[in-house]
Amino acid sequence: MKDLINQTLKYIIKDTPKGELRDAMEYALNTGGKRVRPLLLLKTLESYGLDPKPYLQVASSIEMIHTYSLIHDDLPAMDDDDLRRNQPTLHIQFNEATAILAGDALLTDAFKLLSNQTFIDEKKRIKLVEILSTHSGSNGMVYGQSLDLLYENKVTPIEILQEIHIHKTAKLIQAPLLMAGIIAGQKDLDSLASLGEALGLVFQVQDDLLESLSDEKTMGKSLSDDTNEKSTYVKLLGTKETKKIVDNLFNTIEKTLEAIYFKDKTPLSNLIDQVKNRIN
Amino acid sequence: MKDLINQTLKYIIKDTPKGELRDAMEYALNTGGKRVRPLLLLKTLESYGLDPKPYLQVASSIEMIHTYSLIHDDLPAMDDDDLRRNQPTLHIQFNEATAILAGDALLTDAFKLLSNQTFIDEKKRIKLVEILSTHSGSNGMVYGQSLDLLYENKVTPIEILQEIHIHKTAKLIQAPLLMAGIIAGQKDLDSLASLGEALGLVFQVQDDLLESLSDEKTMGKSLSDDTNEKSTYVKLLGTKETKKIVDNLFNTIEKTLEAIYFKDKTPLSNLIDQVKNRIN
Repeated sequence: MKDLINQTLKYIIKDTPKGELRDAMEYALNTGGKRVRPLLLLKTLESYGLDPKPYLQVASSIEMIHTYSLIHDDLPAMDDDDLRRNQPTLHIQFNEATAILAGDALLTDAFKLLSNQTFIDEKKRIKLVEILSTHSGSNGMVYGQSLDLLYENKVTPIEILQEIHIHKTAKLIQAPLLMAGIIAGQKDLDSLASLGEALGLVFQVQDDLLESLSDEKTMGKSLSDDTNEKSTYVKLLGTKETKKIVDNLFNTIEKTLEAIYFKDKTPLSNLIDQVKNRIN
Repeated sequence: MKDLINQTLKYIIKDTPKGELRDAMEYALNTGGKRVRPLLLLKTLESYGLDPKPYLQVASSIEMIHTYSLIHDDLPAMDDDDLRRNQPTLHIQFNEATAILAGDALLTDAFKLLSNQTFIDEKKRIKLVEILSTHSGSNGMVYGQSLDLLYENKVTPIEILQEIHIHKTAKLIQAPLLMAGIIAGQKDLDSLASLGEALGLVFQVQDDLLESLSDEKTMGKSLSDDTNEKSTYVKLLGTKETKKIVDNLFNTIEKTLEAIYFKDKTPLSNLIDQVKNRIN
């Protein structure tokens, strides 16, 4: 399924006129991410008993948003990272202006792509636009990034750190689950929202654990979070307490997963297990 | 009508959580632009015989895209402008990271705002999202910005310069006209597209003329285009030839305006006359 997502991303980009902007967008999309967000949409659809293949472009729109956020996050004025996934970040490989524009283009084109899925009826399609924009804008991911920035080089209370993680990370983990719920015609989206929040939070807290246990080489990205003196769960609560929080979150995830009426929860729960195994 | 647009922009921003991000977005939205793009939507609707007031938020979504593009354009890695409309640009007033994020948030929230206009039926609403995203993304405005960047400090052939203006400026002038056409239920949007292209082009060529005739003080923004050695119509063709092109474009605009079946073309043609009077 990950291969199909990569193929779809390669196909989509052909819609952009050839040139440096397109090269930059392509470079950023092809730096081999785990594709967790699009996979979450596709596997949730599968769990609802739907064929996920027609929704590869919908899934890709979420990866485009994720990719743009990494590009802008890596910029010198933000986290100032030179490496991501062992490769030069976009502003290093190209230049800063092109990185800003490529991010802007990926963000904008994500909504174009969603609006073009004419086989999805308009009521659902506009709902997909609403969810993706709400979860990534000034009430979602970007709000989390701005909070993160505000607390840089400060000791961040754990409640604020959680607020940062919920917005910066969990909102864009919730989005694919909710979007799958909309596509599958589900009325009650609250459980999907809870599942997404716990999953997004655990994803980030795991990252804190990984960063504290790892070094630059094995992480494949610069440890800017460390050098920028950002607060993390591990720094605030210690490794042991942080591991306990991760376990609790996985319990919440398991219970929420049980409570949702899926045709077959295996596809989604297998994916969640893979996320879990990153740390165990 | 401009006051109503300003009020609507102030009202919309209340949806963002209080804090630096919101302050930055508000600062950028309130630096007193001419609001040409939202006015184009509202006046076109009026010309089609519709009450424009319900569409103030739709109009605002276009101004949000325009505002984000100015914020990112002014960044040190792009045009590196310190002043816009006689006030410090966003990255000067706040900081670079906040400017990047405020731009990202305005861009994303524009689509959220469009998707939330529940009184517009979903078929039209998704079409509005499609037009705005297509005209501002990697086939539209951002493509123009990337071309502009590529030809910085180079002599740009006039055909390329036109291509830059069409994408960087005219695409987001076309968008409000086409969006008004969709709202008014028009089937033939080609004339609106031609009108928008000519209008956007004249807008930019006029800017070239103004910049060549003016100085920093009267323009109220740094003359970065000049110091960055960007090609302009005036530099390539001279003032006389450029004025001729502007006249020809206004003839095209007038003829196209005649060809479109409006209930009363006065509201739109009055607005176009105001644009014209900037230079005469």
